[in-house]
Amino acid sequence: MNETREGDGETREADEGTRETGEVVVLRYGHRPGRDDRMTTHVGLTARAFGADRVILPDNAGQSAETVRGVTDRFGGPFGVELREDQKAIVRNWEGVVVHLTMYGERIQDVEGEIRAAVRADDGRAVGDRGGDARDLLVVVGGEKVPWALYERADFNVGVTNQPHSEVAGLAVFLDRLFEGEELDREWVDADRRVVPEATGKTVVDADDRGRGDTERDDGDAEST
Amino acid sequence: MNETREGDGETREADEGTRETGEVVVLRYGHRPGRDDRMTTHVGLTARAFGADRVILPDNAGQSAETVRGVTDRFGGPFGVELREDQKAIVRNWEGVVVHLTMYGERIQDVEGEIRAAVRADDGRAVGDRGGDARDLLVVVGGEKVPWALYERADFNVGVTNQPHSEVAGLAVFLDRLFEGEELDREWVDADRRVVPEATGKTVVDADDRGRGDTERDDGDAEST
Repeated sequence: MNETREGDGETREADEGTRETGEVVVLRYGHRPGRDDRMTTHVGLTARAFGADRVILPDNAGQSAETVRGVTDRFGGPFGVELREDQKAIVRNWEGVVVHLTMYGERIQDVEGEIRAAVRADDGRAVGDRGGDARDLLVVVGGEKVPWALYERADFNVGVTNQPHSEVAGLAVFLDRLFEGEELDREWVDADRRVVPEATGKTVVDADDRGRGDTERDDGDAEST
Repeated sequence: MNETREGDGETREADEGTRETGEVVVLRYGHRPGRDDRMTTHVGLTARAFGADRVILPDNAGQSAETVRGVTDRFGGPFGVELREDQKAIVRNWEGVVVHLTMYGERIQDVEGEIRAAVRADDGRAVGDRGGDARDLLVVVGGEKVPWALYERADFNVGVTNQPHSEVAGLAVFLDRLFEGEELDREWVDADRRVVPEATGKTVVDADDRGRGDTERDDGDAEST
């Protein structure tokens, strides 16, 4: 399971023909197999659901990668999942902006505007809109202790609260604020199925079915993968 | 560890003398010991960090309760942690508004204003401001499969995206939107220690130390409890 498959990220770039700028990538830094499996899976699923383009997981997190790929296959993308062993080098050599989420960092409410400005293209294109001279953004989410060099390399060390809580919670709120909620309206492509939002119900339809007819009851536990 | 200690919640109410309205309480519905320990702990820590007043955990989640109480002791409150076995009854008998977070629910961006209005006091007091005739809010976060009765009892079934991701991510974004970010500025009382937000550093000071002198290096892994 520890193969380094480039996955959907590379497929998408190949489809589009050119490398575009303005990509938002989440890097899970460190992973303890067994103990961290669910947290790492949830980091990957949260990155996907809240609008990142790709997640990079440590190469010993193959099981989490498979789970996230499976969700992307069923519920759509584009979303890339990569397994890489060179976490330090990815951070060191990143050509865009590096944000490190840590409870010791500057307050999200104080720096979120500055972060958006740092990645925004000169033509005013917002973060997440690809192309132009927008800068790529790497969001680093710690697992095990992260090296001091990461604090120094990061353009922004950001505290989503300065309280101990959860790297998954921090990532979700960071992305929701980064995209100013626009990630909630994104459309998913190449999905097999689609949840129909409703006041009382659990309705899942074929992704190409715009009506409500052909419903399917899905696993109620799908959220707690 | 499975004692039903009412904990800080009751202490706080006793301190204040009267039961106030407008409380925001998170209920973790279901818990599988071992498998769910970290997720349940993160639900509790996220509820605390993002402005809820209390978390109610299933009575088999004693270990998670101890961890959340320990963080509250060190980093401050007020925040209540309760272990209760009567999850169904808590939901059924709740006298205020019940929100159930589920990927099948209505879109958060469509209903968040309506939820704030449903709990708001007639004098316009915002959610989280206690007193007056504000209504209490119960936020139910599913673990294991939740019963259909919960979908029916909930005043709002809410999808923080209609994608599979993480109950911790959903709770964090829900609370951040519910409180419109104001939870990020809350002050903590009775804390032993306080993180000093900074661009590059890991500085923790005594909670009553407003300066930067007497610093202590804390465990860098504190966020991934």
